[in-house]
Amino acid sequence: MDITTLGEARFPSPQRRTVSDQARVPSRLIHDPSTAAATEDWQFELAGPRERLFFDPTQTRAGIVTCGGLCPGLNNVIRSLFLELHYGYGVKDVLGFRGGYQGLDPVRGLEPFILTPTFVHAIHKDGGTVLGTSRGPVDIGLAVDNLIQRGINILFTVGGDGTQRGGHALFKEAQRRGHPLAVVGIPKTIDNDVAFVSRTFGYLTAVEEAARVLHCAHTEAHSVHNGIALVKLMGRHAGFIAAGATVASQDVNFTLIPEIPLHLDGEQGFLTALKRRILQRAHALVVVAEGAGQDLLASTQDSDASGNAKLQDIGPFLRARIEQYFQAEQIPVTLRYFDPSYLIRSVPADAEDSILCDFFARNAVHAAMAGKTGLVIGLLHDSFIHVPIDLLVSQKKRLDLNGPGWRAVLAATGQHLD
Amino acid sequence: MDITTLGEARFPSPQRRTVSDQARVPSRLIHDPSTAAATEDWQFELAGPRERLFFDPTQTRAGIVTCGGLCPGLNNVIRSLFLELHYGYGVKDVLGFRGGYQGLDPVRGLEPFILTPTFVHAIHKDGGTVLGTSRGPVDIGLAVDNLIQRGINILFTVGGDGTQRGGHALFKEAQRRGHPLAVVGIPKTIDNDVAFVSRTFGYLTAVEEAARVLHCAHTEAHSVHNGIALVKLMGRHAGFIAAGATVASQDVNFTLIPEIPLHLDGEQGFLTALKRRILQRAHALVVVAEGAGQDLLASTQDSDASGNAKLQDIGPFLRARIEQYFQAEQIPVTLRYFDPSYLIRSVPADAEDSILCDFFARNAVHAAMAGKTGLVIGLLHDSFIHVPIDLLVSQKKRLDLNGPGWRAVLAATGQHLD
Amino acid sequence: MDITTLGEARFPSPQRRTVSDQARVPSRLIHDPSTAAATEDWQFELAGPRERLFFDPTQTRAGIVTCGGLCPGLNNVIRSLFLELHYGYGVKDVLGFRGGYQGLDPVRGLEPFILTPTFVHAIHKDGGTVLGTSRGPVDIGLAVDNLIQRGINILFTVGGDGTQRGGHALFKEAQRRGHPLAVVGIPKTIDNDVAFVSRTFGYLTAVEEAARVLHCAHTEAHSVHNGIALVKLMGRHAGFIAAGATVASQDVNFTLIPEIPLHLDGEQGFLTALKRRILQRAHALVVVAEGAGQDLLASTQDSDASGNAKLQDIGPFLRARIEQYFQAEQIPVTLRYFDPSYLIRSVPADAEDSILCDFFARNAVHAAMAGKTGLVIGLLHDSFIHVPIDLLVSQKKRLDLNGPGWRAVLAATGQHLD
Amino acid sequence: MDITTLGEARFPSPQRRTVSDQARVPSRLIHDPSTAAATEDWQFELAGPRERLFFDPTQTRAGIVTCGGLCPGLNNVIRSLFLELHYGYGVKDVLGFRGGYQGLDPVRGLEPFILTPTFVHAIHKDGGTVLGTSRGPVDIGLAVDNLIQRGINILFTVGGDGTQRGGHALFKEAQRRGHPLAVVGIPKTIDNDVAFVSRTFGYLTAVEEAARVLHCAHTEAHSVHNGIALVKLMGRHAGFIAAGATVASQDVNFTLIPEIPLHLDGEQGFLTALKRRILQRAHALVVVAEGAGQDLLASTQDSDASGNAKLQDIGPFLRARIEQYFQAEQIPVTLRYFDPSYLIRSVPADAEDSILCDFFARNAVHAAMAGKTGLVIGLLHDSFIHVPIDLLVSQKKRLDLNGPGWRAVLAATGQHLD
Repeated sequence: MDITTLGEARFPSPQRRTVSDQARVPSRLIHDPSTAAATEDWQFELAGPRERLFFDPTQTRAGIVTCGGLCPGLNNVIRSLFLELHYGYGVKDVLGFRGGYQGLDPVRGLEPFILTPTFVHAIHKDGGTVLGTSRGPVDIGLAVDNLIQRGINILFTVGGDGTQRGGHALFKEAQRRGHPLAVVGIPKTIDNDVAFVSRTFGYLTAVEEAARVLHCAHTEAHSVHNGIALVKLMGRHAGFIAAGATVASQDVNFTLIPEIPLHLDGEQGFLTALKRRILQRAHALVVVAEGAGQDLLASTQDSDASGNAKLQDIGPFLRARIEQYFQAEQIPVTLRYFDPSYLIRSVPADAEDSILCDFFARNAVHAAMAGKTGLVIGLLHDSFIHVPIDLLVSQKKRLDLNGPGWRAVLAATGQHLD
Repeated sequence: MDITTLGEARFPSPQRRTVSDQARVPSRLIHDPSTAAATEDWQFELAGPRERLFFDPTQTRAGIVTCGGLCPGLNNVIRSLFLELHYGYGVKDVLGFRGGYQGLDPVRGLEPFILTPTFVHAIHKDGGTVLGTSRGPVDIGLAVDNLIQRGINILFTVGGDGTQRGGHALFKEAQRRGHPLAVVGIPKTIDNDVAFVSRTFGYLTAVEEAARVLHCAHTEAHSVHNGIALVKLMGRHAGFIAAGATVASQDVNFTLIPEIPLHLDGEQGFLTALKRRILQRAHALVVVAEGAGQDLLASTQDSDASGNAKLQDIGPFLRARIEQYFQAEQIPVTLRYFDPSYLIRSVPADAEDSILCDFFARNAVHAAMAGKTGLVIGLLHDSFIHVPIDLLVSQKKRLDLNGPGWRAVLAATGQHLD
Repeated sequence: MDITTLGEARFPSPQRRTVSDQARVPSRLIHDPSTAAATEDWQFELAGPRERLFFDPTQTRAGIVTCGGLCPGLNNVIRSLFLELHYGYGVKDVLGFRGGYQGLDPVRGLEPFILTPTFVHAIHKDGGTVLGTSRGPVDIGLAVDNLIQRGINILFTVGGDGTQRGGHALFKEAQRRGHPLAVVGIPKTIDNDVAFVSRTFGYLTAVEEAARVLHCAHTEAHSVHNGIALVKLMGRHAGFIAAGATVASQDVNFTLIPEIPLHLDGEQGFLTALKRRILQRAHALVVVAEGAGQDLLASTQDSDASGNAKLQDIGPFLRARIEQYFQAEQIPVTLRYFDPSYLIRSVPADAEDSILCDFFARNAVHAAMAGKTGLVIGLLHDSFIHVPIDLLVSQKKRLDLNGPGWRAVLAATGQHLD
Repeated sequence: MDITTLGEARFPSPQRRTVSDQARVPSRLIHDPSTAAATEDWQFELAGPRERLFFDPTQTRAGIVTCGGLCPGLNNVIRSLFLELHYGYGVKDVLGFRGGYQGLDPVRGLEPFILTPTFVHAIHKDGGTVLGTSRGPVDIGLAVDNLIQRGINILFTVGGDGTQRGGHALFKEAQRRGHPLAVVGIPKTIDNDVAFVSRTFGYLTAVEEAARVLHCAHTEAHSVHNGIALVKLMGRHAGFIAAGATVASQDVNFTLIPEIPLHLDGEQGFLTALKRRILQRAHALVVVAEGAGQDLLASTQDSDASGNAKLQDIGPFLRARIEQYFQAEQIPVTLRYFDPSYLIRSVPADAEDSILCDFFARNAVHAAMAGKTGLVIGLLHDSFIHVPIDLLVSQKKRLDLNGPGWRAVLAATGQHLD
């Protein structure tokens, strides 16, 4: 599946070293004659500067928009996008659209502003996003009107699946109208659950902060007799943050993730296992990803402004169930509940995520200047790649329960639940 | 009001430099002819090593107990108590009672253990308490039986008002039975609300961590349009943590404390002021101490195991009221609520608190070895002092609304609420 | 010794609550009948807003200058000075002089700039000084010409002794010329060695960072056989940082400070004591304040641009002596040398220092607006005071070798050197 | 090149999920028809638990040794090795050899000790190595005598190239004597310069700490007029730490690495470029890897105890040359020199490195239990692999000057030196 291009790349690139448009990165890496190939083998374009550009830098205006929840590194991405456009290619005007996709709508949004070297100078040292963000889609027609009127030829969309789908619709509509618009996405999910992106920016910082929280929770649990600390971490559909923080911390006794159905009751259930732990060691640390155990909760059809299904809150539910259980068992426990998500996602990117953001952003600029569109930058086997949005949104990344990551969680916790 | 002593101090001290038993620190410092003296002028003994000891170190056994909620520095205090007893005076046996006052009760508690240099070596680098803790009193008779049976002559009680009152009762009961028992308290309140202690250990660390949380909350608030971050901080009866974190952060717009009645409604009320802020600046950061606005909540007569009146939770109450208000005003806002108390109180002591803990602990040992009892170590005008427990529990420390601390909060927030 | 005032304070203050000009804070606090009074008893004005002002805020221009080495909190001071002038009093123009005292000299200095709320908004989150700094004096005549020409009536000087003496000279010269100029100093010394200031801003942050370094140094020392870590810390004339970090860390074995002559050789000397430690425990952590052992070094008459006597570098000297000694003793050791001063002094202020800076700065503004001059803001027994510069520079603060601070160092290290 | 095995794996594995011995990971990933294949294509065994074991866990004793300089994560590796052996396989005795390879020599070394769950419980939260370390080789004959006498069948060697070569020699000698000894290495190089290991443990933590240092250095540089901060970072033969910290920080102006010859003089030289920067911006931040510019220094033939060629110290050399140059140019500058290596390498592993250490260690145990020897655990394209030591030591990893890493450095610094 190759990437859509706007047309022939005719302008010379100012970049000294470039990457061939023919270079391919395969999705399937390990050769194992003992097993049948389980997954299709995709071939991805290697990201990087191209020899020839579709856009003439001197005639090009770019825009940047950040959507959805906060994630460490948003400002790094904005900054590196701007700097690569400005210094790397000589693009003069880069507009920051404000408040997420609302900012593309001239009625609902605030006026965008021109980014400058002075403005972006130190923004990467702060969490959050200087452009602001919001949830929810934008009226495609109004947004494309706006982009055309402002002469925008390149739009960088930093956000999750919904954002990227929206970006794709913007490109299609612009194409329909004959306006050359390259839309290049930078995948943003603190949960790290995007296909063809082995590590999304912000994820490592989140694991670092989550591990700090686990350290505090462990201290609370073991400083009182029969202390239980219950920590809800991010992870709507995948347990990567919960798993990563568990392995980093090595203090967790139970890690509950969306990929594994949660059984509370019965001899093999979580509550009995927790009782065993408390009776043996008099304290326990439990991590639950926010998407775990959703089938246990009263189902609703709600979804948030971004179209994500609204999760019921597993944290207070599990807290109540644990307290009821031990009360019924007449075992006095002290339960402390932690819900640190906003404290985790609002910090600045750590060093590794800062580096990652820089790579994602600069590669996005290279792709856009070459006239590529309808793609996001991916990361596979340590190589940055171009991932068609159609392919991206058709696949999901989940923790491989037979893989080394989950094996490390089982070794760290010693949990026997399933 | 002088300190109770167990009897004549007859043994020579191994300490090279000592402090006179006659040295006094006055509570009243500032001389202001323009005002009548508002407060009684107490004269406190200066803490420090005494020339002569009541207890023969070679014949003395000491015990340590930590009570109530976690507070940064508990392990530092335990460690310095032990080291001063062991190396400073040559006391051979120091027992760690486990699980708070429950550990003094041989029926309910776990067996205490002998502290050693190896055991305490690095404990000050961890949060929590290696002795464990619990809330609630102990049966005085059973506890004194236990102390006598174990030959304990000195007991260090690390805890709040209730703990210190309990310690005093232990001394009285031991005295009634003719057992020489020195009970010396180290005041522990992360809220910093103890009279005659200008700064309790753990308070500065709590302010540091709270300021970190405010930084995150500020990021959340200003990254979305009309973002409101509401942070509940510790402070049952006094707003010291809320005030300190506000002045350190300089990002807070409203700081609500127990010392000032909370008026939500009306033109002068908090909600109107918050609306003004949102309309002007499109984001706001609100700090509420847990004891603020208690009169607004349905009153109950409950108290926890330590006998503290149970507070209703102002956080979710205020969150709901803010959301209702803006809904009624038809102003869409995004509210993020933060409840970081367990994350704040479970961290290790920072450098300044580590130093403070060392001073508190070693002065407690000096007092006890000299046969002083019924006191806690205080800190007044930068000097460590002996505070009779009777006096301690008769006074409360609150934020002075006419003093420089609150003035600094008003300057930092610009709030005009009262 | 009262403070110089420029004249009658005639303008009403906008501050709601004020402090009496008659309130006094005594320097001597502890009453000890067993000793003769060792020190003179000074009475200081209490700092704070005054009821009446000498300067009409609407007609007043103020300037700020930061001098000498970096210190955590400089930007907090600048920011709070500006905010109190701007919002607290309504002073319209506040000039930031750039590059230290050089910035007062129109020939050598860069053009000063007008501070604004936007400019200072987040500067307190950064280390260093946004105004820049330099060492060395300024030509008093040229500077006063400049101040008069620019209509400056209030100058805030943030710096050490030399800076404050310079500020006093500026006031005197302006007075001679009939120009009403209030010069109010904020004492800046990371070493914490200024009389009548119990804690200078930046000191606690420095201790915190120094304790971090000691933790690393301890790790290096005990991870190899006969590992010695030697850490040079700040402290030209006083060992406060070395002592504070030692007590916070509890891992140090020897703390060498300027207040105690350093004897390297002989049975009672440092090297023999270090050998004993190495033979017993196979690792050691040594802290040396930069001003320790200066008499052992070849003396020179040099001084730096600020007029401070240039110290010889005790660090490499001691490192070489230790290595020579153990080589001669045929004991193989691995020595790691740490010189972290620039890493310590360049970080942002921690929470407590941030609060301290705010108090120092706002009190400086209150003093200046009341027409007081020739003073610095001091801090005594937890109260902020006005200290005449003449008095300030006539006294030195040193570690009291008979006091609790040094006693805590001896207890933490177990060192027996003197 | 396949891995050496001690013999037929006959014992059943207690591990639930295993990895095929036939699974292969190729070294060459990207397919680029536009270029000739530049590198040989190695096929590596995939690491992970095997279905059958060579060693009977109940009859097996293992040993662990850590060698060379400190690196964040050493204790994590020790801990996970022990836990996987103990809980994962049921190996009863795991010996910790002390003080590096010296500890294998019964004459020179300290007695090894038996690791226990209690001992290793929290060691991963500390920097350094609880086993101690040293540089230099061990007498192979004596060491194998010792291993045989102690009944050691598995030895884990945590260290650099020299350590791994030594481990290989131990295996060969044991084989010669008919003693089945599996030697499995975990590559340790904070410099990240080992072939077939895309990221060595400790590297990311080092980049994080180095970025902190760069932040301080930047503050020092821009707070004075013509301030130059020169920071020496680790990197004997490869500039990975310098490059990573530069991209993370985004504040660096010049990054000098071993892979690029350093030209100081001339119009294209570093000093002229630095002068341009100073004249334009009045401050500069320079990073130099310790191995850069070695040809400029007086060459010697020295090597350290580990056999590494001793580097001359580029830091003070460059500092002196910069000062001389600006003196000659009559441009006054203030130069601050930073040498933070010991502060960087002695901290605990961050979350990502903690995870990495766990993977390296557990995979090493899996390999050893299966009877594999003469290998180290590698990491390629996000997969853990078995790398024959012969191959490992025949290749070097260097920064690819045509790759995205160095391109990111050039974009971040804007340097034009080569």
